[in-house]
Amino acid sequence: MPESPDSPVGVCDIGGTNLRVALADRQGKLLARRAVPHATRDAGAIIDTAARELLTLANVRGAALRGVGVSVPGPLDPARGVVHFSPNLGWHDVPLAQRLEERLGVPVALDDDANCAALGEHAAYGDAAPRDFVYIVIGTGIGGGLIFDGELYRGASGSAGEIGHTTIVSDGPRCTCGNRGCLEALAAGPALVRRARELGTDYANAGELIAAARAGEAIASQALGDAARYLGIGLANLVNSLNPAAIALGGGVALDAREMLLDPAVAEMRGRAFASAASAVRVELARLGEDASLVGAARLILRRGLRA
Amino acid sequence: MPESPDSPVGVCDIGGTNLRVALADRQGKLLARRAVPHATRDAGAIIDTAARELLTLANVRGAALRGVGVSVPGPLDPARGVVHFSPNLGWHDVPLAQRLEERLGVPVALDDDANCAALGEHAAYGDAAPRDFVYIVIGTGIGGGLIFDGELYRGASGSAGEIGHTTIVSDGPRCTCGNRGCLEALAAGPALVRRARELGTDYANAGELIAAARAGEAIASQALGDAARYLGIGLANLVNSLNPAAIALGGGVALDAREMLLDPAVAEMRGRAFASAASAVRVELARLGEDASLVGAARLILRRGLRA
Repeated sequence: MPESPDSPVGVCDIGGTNLRVALADRQGKLLARRAVPHATRDAGAIIDTAARELLTLANVRGAALRGVGVSVPGPLDPARGVVHFSPNLGWHDVPLAQRLEERLGVPVALDDDANCAALGEHAAYGDAAPRDFVYIVIGTGIGGGLIFDGELYRGASGSAGEIGHTTIVSDGPRCTCGNRGCLEALAAGPALVRRARELGTDYANAGELIAAARAGEAIASQALGDAARYLGIGLANLVNSLNPAAIALGGGVALDAREMLLDPAVAEMRGRAFASAASAVRVELARLGEDASLVGAARLILRRGLRA
Repeated sequence: MPESPDSPVGVCDIGGTNLRVALADRQGKLLARRAVPHATRDAGAIIDTAARELLTLANVRGAALRGVGVSVPGPLDPARGVVHFSPNLGWHDVPLAQRLEERLGVPVALDDDANCAALGEHAAYGDAAPRDFVYIVIGTGIGGGLIFDGELYRGASGSAGEIGHTTIVSDGPRCTCGNRGCLEALAAGPALVRRARELGTDYANAGELIAAARAGEAIASQALGDAARYLGIGLANLVNSLNPAAIALGGGVALDAREMLLDPAVAEMRGRAFASAASAVRVELARLGEDASLVGAARLILRRGLRA
């Protein structure tokens, strides 16, 4: 199969339960995609499956891959392409980029899922892309990705963007990270469920709670309202300290609750942040849903300056 | 007087009570300086004095100025050189850069005092300058400046770095900005004095309180310890969200209290932040004291690419 300037890149999103693969054109548009449930969490088996699925997609299209971008849960080292630790997958120090490069013979770039989704959502603005942008993913946990001056900001050791682990209530509930009162411990899915239980109603998960709130159930509404208020404080902190032009909220909880979470969070932010910084920022729901990390992974590899 | 490649730049720090002027060489080293108390807060009179003092310093050296960098309290527009509003000076929409350029016939660059001090403290690291750096000034208020990838980060509307106005205690004491529980309302000089008063002892100002804490007075020590704890939460939030390589603490309160504030704040930060991000950051006292904003103002104008 010829490798030409029009050859696609492969992209791959390794989640806790699913592997998703796709092809993308040189503008980063997704061309074809497939989702494959994990039979195992074994790194070697997942890498084999990813390589095989990518080659199959390329083969169907009659084109060779020019490179591959990978979104994977971190922490990881994007420069060396190594996944240090992935709690959901049970991986430790997996040289993921190198192994995929050996299998496929093309360059591989990787970053963590929040950074990939941030790149994807940023790309979704097209020509109106904000120079300074924050992406927040709210699901089982809360993560984030920062784009400053149009570029992903990784920080000194690659862990920038852990917005879910900023303290909102100094003596608040214990967080999975060991700290107290983190935004994640107050506004992620499990925090919603825990808050409703404190108020007297058990929900099996955040999705059920959000559906109940939509139907007007008082305790579910209050739990969601409390989370929105804490999220608004986190937004105000971002707005005052980073003065971004846009903040996008993605992840299962945000995209399920939508305006029930967004509107009161933005109101709380506006009540707390400086007027000039608050009026400079658009806070919106993310646009790409599950595709965000795939689109971002395509952008990762396309920016590598691949040979034509 | 000849303008040569060795001609100095002028720098100027317009504070609430003093005007400080200096010359700097092309490496940004301060050569000569003068402080002049304000006789008035009138913008025209202060600009006249600044121009006159700069020309006098240059004249003594037998050199022409190549340009001027100015540090001034904001908010302001660095691109247009306009001070929007300066509460300490009572200024509104003063086209400061243009007026100084008209008086001196050379380019003028300006930025707010926290950004200038951040640039100065960053420069003080020399060849070991951290790529990602946060400067925090703790005095009557708390401000900050952010340097990412070696460059000052200003945000979408130039107000990035308002670290003092991030919420640390969601229902905490009212802040001058209108919000509740801001870091400034918990750890700046007036917050120290207020906390000691709540505990039963009046201090005239933060300086007296810090001196009493140094002498072992229990209430002063407790007030300072409480502030250090809140500062530590603010540091943890910065470390987790921005993963900087270094954070420097300057301003009167920090440089007066020194290790009495720094050490417990860093301990609190280490207890809350991710270990990987906490181990990637050095938290230190600022190095340049009052000179930071002058050194930063020199860097502002030297980076403009002046003619030789």
